[in-house]
Amino acid sequence: MAVINHQFRLAARPVGLPKRSDWKTTEEPVRDPGPGEVLVKVLYISLDPAMRGWMNEGKSYIPPVEIGAVMRAGGAGRVIASGNPAFAVGDHVTGVLGVQEYLLVDEKSAKGLIKVDPKLVPLPVYVGALGLTGLTAYFGLLEVGQAKAGDTVVISGACGATGMVAGQIAKIKGCRAVGVAGGPEKCGYVVKELGFDACIDYKNEDVKEGLRKHCPQGIDVYFDNVGGEILDAALAQLARGARVVLCGAISQYNSTSGFRGPSNYMSLLVNRARMQGFVVFDYAARYGEAAREMAGWMMAGKLKSKEDIVEGFQTFPETLLRLFRGENFGKLMIKVADA
Amino acid sequence: MAVINHQFRLAARPVGLPKRSDWKTTEEPVRDPGPGEVLVKVLYISLDPAMRGWMNEGKSYIPPVEIGAVMRAGGAGRVIASGNPAFAVGDHVTGVLGVQEYLLVDEKSAKGLIKVDPKLVPLPVYVGALGLTGLTAYFGLLEVGQAKAGDTVVISGACGATGMVAGQIAKIKGCRAVGVAGGPEKCGYVVKELGFDACIDYKNEDVKEGLRKHCPQGIDVYFDNVGGEILDAALAQLARGARVVLCGAISQYNSTSGFRGPSNYMSLLVNRARMQGFVVFDYAARYGEAAREMAGWMMAGKLKSKEDIVEGFQTFPETLLRLFRGENFGKLMIKVADA
Repeated sequence: MAVINHQFRLAARPVGLPKRSDWKTTEEPVRDPGPGEVLVKVLYISLDPAMRGWMNEGKSYIPPVEIGAVMRAGGAGRVIASGNPAFAVGDHVTGVLGVQEYLLVDEKSAKGLIKVDPKLVPLPVYVGALGLTGLTAYFGLLEVGQAKAGDTVVISGACGATGMVAGQIAKIKGCRAVGVAGGPEKCGYVVKELGFDACIDYKNEDVKEGLRKHCPQGIDVYFDNVGGEILDAALAQLARGARVVLCGAISQYNSTSGFRGPSNYMSLLVNRARMQGFVVFDYAARYGEAAREMAGWMMAGKLKSKEDIVEGFQTFPETLLRLFRGENFGKLMIKVADA
Repeated sequence: MAVINHQFRLAARPVGLPKRSDWKTTEEPVRDPGPGEVLVKVLYISLDPAMRGWMNEGKSYIPPVEIGAVMRAGGAGRVIASGNPAFAVGDHVTGVLGVQEYLLVDEKSAKGLIKVDPKLVPLPVYVGALGLTGLTAYFGLLEVGQAKAGDTVVISGACGATGMVAGQIAKIKGCRAVGVAGGPEKCGYVVKELGFDACIDYKNEDVKEGLRKHCPQGIDVYFDNVGGEILDAALAQLARGARVVLCGAISQYNSTSGFRGPSNYMSLLVNRARMQGFVVFDYAARYGEAAREMAGWMMAGKLKSKEDIVEGFQTFPETLLRLFRGENFGKLMIKVADA
């Protein structure tokens, strides 16, 4: 086999938005898998806000990507050679494949690959709504947020990959779902296509006022993907006993002046409320159960998936920035190859 | 009866620290109680950081004190006349007595008075460690914070009324208790007299460094009375699954530039931790149970009470400021009369 693998490696820890010079491209020949090893051709690379955090130094929920290492990323691909009896050529898999065209894993790492069937739903759906993105929405909303029928649930980043799924699950569970998103197109989409009860356009509306209007009884669950001003606006409108789910803070990840803390945090005291963080990996033992339930909703037409697919491996540095500029519409990923 | 009642009423909503001109003193004759009414002579007035919040306009966990109304305050007193068979002259009571020398309550409000026996412990203890202050520490630490044996518990405002009790309960429950307080005298006291394992002097030490040193395994429960920089330092040192108990934010109450939010709040995500507020009134049904347990600890010499008692009703405006300047040492109260 004489195949060349192209890769994006971390060249420097970014200050603010990642620049082209924070990346180094490399190419190396791909060798045949030895015993136990599996060679995967990457077809889709998942782009996620969390990637920005992995580029920073310091303690977090997983180690940072080392300088010089291939950038960490989820994705989906196809097994093209295998020395591992658990994987056959032609199997489709999802997992942490990295920002590269090929992944060769040893027997131990191969256990992290999940076989999926693209005849049931298209491969990109396994990266999005039925992948870690969807699982994050599921466990964040139902386990951390304890959302239940009758609750008013507010979701920021409502037209982002996780927010879309969270809002739809809220509706499935009998909650009132109010989104916050940027621009009339995104807001219209989550209401008309995804069934949210309302959506506040933070680029053109006063979020605090919108939350007062759409959540007159207060917010029972606030699923936060963005942090910053919108988090503060939501804190100001909490209902008694509210749960604030910390899923992300995309408005803050590229700040060069440090994170902005929520100045309304004492609303948690006044309202006997809690703010709680989580990492989806902690729920790994229940991924199967949750994915099956979500697949059922999808088959029943209750849960829609929307991907924002950009063609071309080499677009990676620019495509990643679309997340931080709020330019993606649904689950952002790069299509690396057809098959 | 020809008795004159002196009162401090709220004259204006303070900006920053309450000024003398934010208060109006009034005097009015006290009349004899009618059927069902009780007349209490106030002996001690409790001064609490929460009072600052009650002076602000706007929605909170209880209505603000109205302009012109007698300032709300807890306290202890003695029944000097009664038209209510449940209260006899000579009974000692605690409750919300207000910043005044006498309180006449109707039958309904009389239900809020709690009879106490100053022969068992001195009357000021019922205002402090065995009063709402102690109950706040008890329910905050054990119910909201879920502190259990082996946990590392950090308490800010450790030499304040609530912090002192919280740290001692942590020790009683088998936790490691680390305080944060201002100055060597306070720090020495909580370690040597109250049995804390360590205390960080925020006026002379780097709190972040101190927390790293004294909590090498991270903080399991952070009982926050102060907010601001110390809250941020504690967030930076949380253990996985930590609970941050929001009891108060005294460093922020008099800020004229708004509250400072905790910029390290995403440590809650990384550490799968939660930050939760509470209001002690929600536990009213369990006050008796908790007070009995705390009285038992006190009798056994495990729980010490320390009051900072200032003489003279007229000192109220200046004495209140001692709280916000960190000048009190233990539970601050004003002694209004001997008996």
